Amino acid sequence: MRRQKKFYAWGYADEDLSPGEIAPWEAEIAKRYGIAAFDVTPPPRPEEFTLRPSRVSVPASLQSLVQTDHLTRLEHSYGKAAFDAIRMFMRSVPQPPDAVAFPESEQDVVRVLDWCDGIGATVIPYGGGSSVVKGIEPPASADKVVTISTRHMDKVLEVDPVSQAARIQAGIYGPAIEDQLRATPFTMRHYMQAYRCSTLGGWIATRSGGHYATLYTHIDDFVESIRMVAPTGALETRRLPGSGAGPSPDRLILGSEGIFGIITEAWVRLRRKPTFRASASVRFRDFYTGADAVRTITQAGLYPANCRLLEAREALPGVPWDNEQAVLVLGFESGNHPLDAWMARAIEICGDHGGVVDPADPDDENAHRSGAAGAWRNRFIRAPHYSEHAVARGIMSSTFETSMTWERFRDFHQKITAITRDTIRRVTGRDGTVTCRFTHVYPDGPCLYFTFGGLLDKRRQLEQFMDVLTTCTAATVEHGGTTTHHHAVGRFHRPFYDRQRPELFARALRGAKRELDPKGLMNPGVLIDP
Amino acid sequence: MRRQKKFYAWGYADEDLSPGEIAPWEAEIAKRYGIAAFDVTPPPRPEEFTLRPSRVSVPASLQSLVQTDHLTRLEHSYGKAAFDAIRMFMRSVPQPPDAVAFPESEQDVVRVLDWCDGIGATVIPYGGGSSVVKGIEPPASADKVVTISTRHMDKVLEVDPVSQAARIQAGIYGPAIEDQLRATPFTMRHYMQAYRCSTLGGWIATRSGGHYATLYTHIDDFVESIRMVAPTGALETRRLPGSGAGPSPDRLILGSEGIFGIITEAWVRLRRKPTFRASASVRFRDFYTGADAVRTITQAGLYPANCRLLEAREALPGVPWDNEQAVLVLGFESGNHPLDAWMARAIEICGDHGGVVDPADPDDENAHRSGAAGAWRNRFIRAPHYSEHAVARGIMSSTFETSMTWERFRDFHQKITAITRDTIRRVTGRDGTVTCRFTHVYPDGPCLYFTFGGLLDKRRQLEQFMDVLTTCTAATVEHGGTTTHHHAVGRFHRPFYDRQRPELFARALRGAKRELDPKGLMNPGVLIDP
Repeated sequence: MRRQKKFYAWGYADEDLSPGEIAPWEAEIAKRYGIAAFDVTPPPRPEEFTLRPSRVSVPASLQSLVQTDHLTRLEHSYGKAAFDAIRMFMRSVPQPPDAVAFPESEQDVVRVLDWCDGIGATVIPYGGGSSVVKGIEPPASADKVVTISTRHMDKVLEVDPVSQAARIQAGIYGPAIEDQLRATPFTMRHYMQAYRCSTLGGWIATRSGGHYATLYTHIDDFVESIRMVAPTGALETRRLPGSGAGPSPDRLILGSEGIFGIITEAWVRLRRKPTFRASASVRFRDFYTGADAVRTITQAGLYPANCRLLEAREALPGVPWDNEQAVLVLGFESGNHPLDAWMARAIEICGDHGGVVDPADPDDENAHRSGAAGAWRNRFIRAPHYSEHAVARGIMSSTFETSMTWERFRDFHQKITAITRDTIRRVTGRDGTVTCRFTHVYPDGPCLYFTFGGLLDKRRQLEQFMDVLTTCTAATVEHGGTTTHHHAVGRFHRPFYDRQRPELFARALRGAKRELDPKGLMNPGVLIDP
Repeated sequence: MRRQKKFYAWGYADEDLSPGEIAPWEAEIAKRYGIAAFDVTPPPRPEEFTLRPSRVSVPASLQSLVQTDHLTRLEHSYGKAAFDAIRMFMRSVPQPPDAVAFPESEQDVVRVLDWCDGIGATVIPYGGGSSVVKGIEPPASADKVVTISTRHMDKVLEVDPVSQAARIQAGIYGPAIEDQLRATPFTMRHYMQAYRCSTLGGWIATRSGGHYATLYTHIDDFVESIRMVAPTGALETRRLPGSGAGPSPDRLILGSEGIFGIITEAWVRLRRKPTFRASASVRFRDFYTGADAVRTITQAGLYPANCRLLEAREALPGVPWDNEQAVLVLGFESGNHPLDAWMARAIEICGDHGGVVDPADPDDENAHRSGAAGAWRNRFIRAPHYSEHAVARGIMSSTFETSMTWERFRDFHQKITAITRDTIRRVTGRDGTVTCRFTHVYPDGPCLYFTFGGLLDKRRQLEQFMDVLTTCTAATVEHGGTTTHHHAVGRFHRPFYDRQRPELFARALRGAKRELDPKGLMNPGVLIDP
């Protein structure tokens, strides 16, 4: 039996936070803001929503594939950002899709697209629905909206053990990939926080970032070939280890966010499951010293799988807010050889920058599950579940991410941190919190992932939250960063993306889209206007 | 004073092969084909060509930038493939450009493009002119052709030592990049056979492959941002270490072969000059056993800088033609740390596959310049100079390259080798030679680089050569490979590229081109038709 995902928030109904998890978290925040008790809005129930009647009539031939019932439309209305949960807690869903299709094959996708083409319906491609950027939200301007969920296309179709690759249907969720590879020596190992409720097709459409902190940071690096169905036909790129024949067709689809068509399957690169690991947690005096060490490690060509620099107060339970220390969670992994030389050199570099290795860890090959790294790992996995409880209490708790080259990093980090802090104070009338970590690092710069918090006025919760998030995101682009390193553009990042992306490239995308989707049915308003 | 490049063949006039290099090579080929003496056509002189009069009239304001003299037009008529040299030796240049512009700045590029737009001239962007695929050859269908050479835009403008990157003008030749970086601790280290006479802009436009056998195989991996001038305006992508904001604009320009505009500059990633090296030559029983070792090394995540598998008879002087052995030229390099552990593990993997290390090499950090590796390196650098002497004698000597995933590699290699051998016999009436090597290797497959030779009938030299090359290249695509791994598409690969490239992607490119180059001035016939 399919487990029920929550329609209004992250995750499955049977895996909510326990009271034992909620109580200390709530107490800590109550203390921080001097609140006696929170006004806790109860989670919404489906019957509390009145949805606009569906504006489409499903032909008999498609009725087994297309649903228009209340709950299905409701649960496909929003992604999983804090602003989505806030609107769900407000019982506000003015723009649900009119129908949701669940094709079971590429032929089904073609049939559904043909129907949408015939009735002029806007099409929203939908993977796991974990978008945090309004990527799968029906636009208000659309006359009719059909969301196409790929979730029944969820099989690993073929494994090539020689080239270490697999042909996989696009609608598969992260865990199902690893489940279906279990009998093989291989793993895809593209994990991210949304891993459990996101799909391969969604990862490709949004250029997701995964487990690997270096080299294989984005899904881009895993993709060998892609199949996609556009309104004007199907496209399949050739499976090749490398090519120089014209601009890469895969790279035009990677990040296309559904504006061209629906990704139906892909060949992706696998690797042997890691049998050798070396992990360590290293403490630094402050974030910038840690950053210098990380920069040196990435420029040394050591390629750690894990290289996440965190502020100690964010990463470790009980570390006071004025603690300036940083923790580097460092890990190497291999299915082929011991990693002593790699780790030894990385530790040496850390030492050159005053880094001190957490004494419990260095010889423990399960260090990634214990110590600072382990504490961090657990928080990372459980973090999305806190969002709805924060929203229910008017607590602001969210993130934004960007990237910046190293030579401007320190100044950029200081500016964005200050802007975030000031904005929270301006909007909420009191101090909030802001922390930064590196999720991925490159020889020429880090991905900066900011987490911010504060206390909102519940009567103006959405407006206040959007003010803070919008101001901070705009600042990342204004100061030279990218509007998103791995959360996609969607409808939320669109204004900032427009400032960052060369206008001629927007025109090129529009020109390409007119060929693949001449009526402009596919996910309009994402990336470009018609 | 600028050294004079040969107008009819590879390289500079003052660096031709010596008689001492030519004599043994000629004797060996004469013996192979049982020829008493070759009929040697003398190299062409400029005055032996009658060029069609220029069909453009250069306005006074551009006369300092645009040349229409005989030699300038002649030397910009062809690239540097064997079929180009054959046509030069035939004194046949029916389609020279009508003028060649040498802009010294981006503003100059704009002025020249405006002029071309005004007179409706076809524009051929020209870097070093080393194309081997008719990428810079004026099409016969054009009414007027203006070639725009970027060679005066040849400066390293800015070096960022923190992020290890440089802003470089697109018209710079390979050696000038390293010359201008000499005072820094950095190197770009993107070397290929055409390095000395090719440009950064040309590399970007054609997705060149360089020195690194793994990870940083194509120029794609070096590019941080690009500036390009299209007929509809200029475009500059944002300098970022990594981003997920929509499809990568850089990746649409990489490989665009001049159909969108003229690349004027780019930020590229540098690295520290290598101070640690570990090199070895390893012999294997045969090519397939060597390939198994190489596959294991690439899948192990060891990332050697050099990992070139060669047939011994191709790589080493004096090895007889029936020798089946293969030689792996293996090298690690770093500007940061010793590489003993990396090399030890790679050698261990080679041993698992019966590989025997050349005894002179393993502890010699200059092994890449001695032994089998050194012999190979010297031949590699001098090889292009032999082409014109082969052409002068009616000797066929050329290459084509492709890539294939590992699980189909052996069958593919056997098929392409057999087709090449059979085609040479069919076309020339006698046996020729065919060898294969890996120039770049990926976890999921190698780049196969085929070298073939034979003896042509000089009266039908061009026709016979094109028959062989076309048949072999078509076979690579028919059997699942790419028409080019790093030589670009140009006008020569176009028919094979059309079979490999999804039709919807061709439409997407046409749609994009209509936005950037609505009159279709830019390098028409390359990649797509209007």
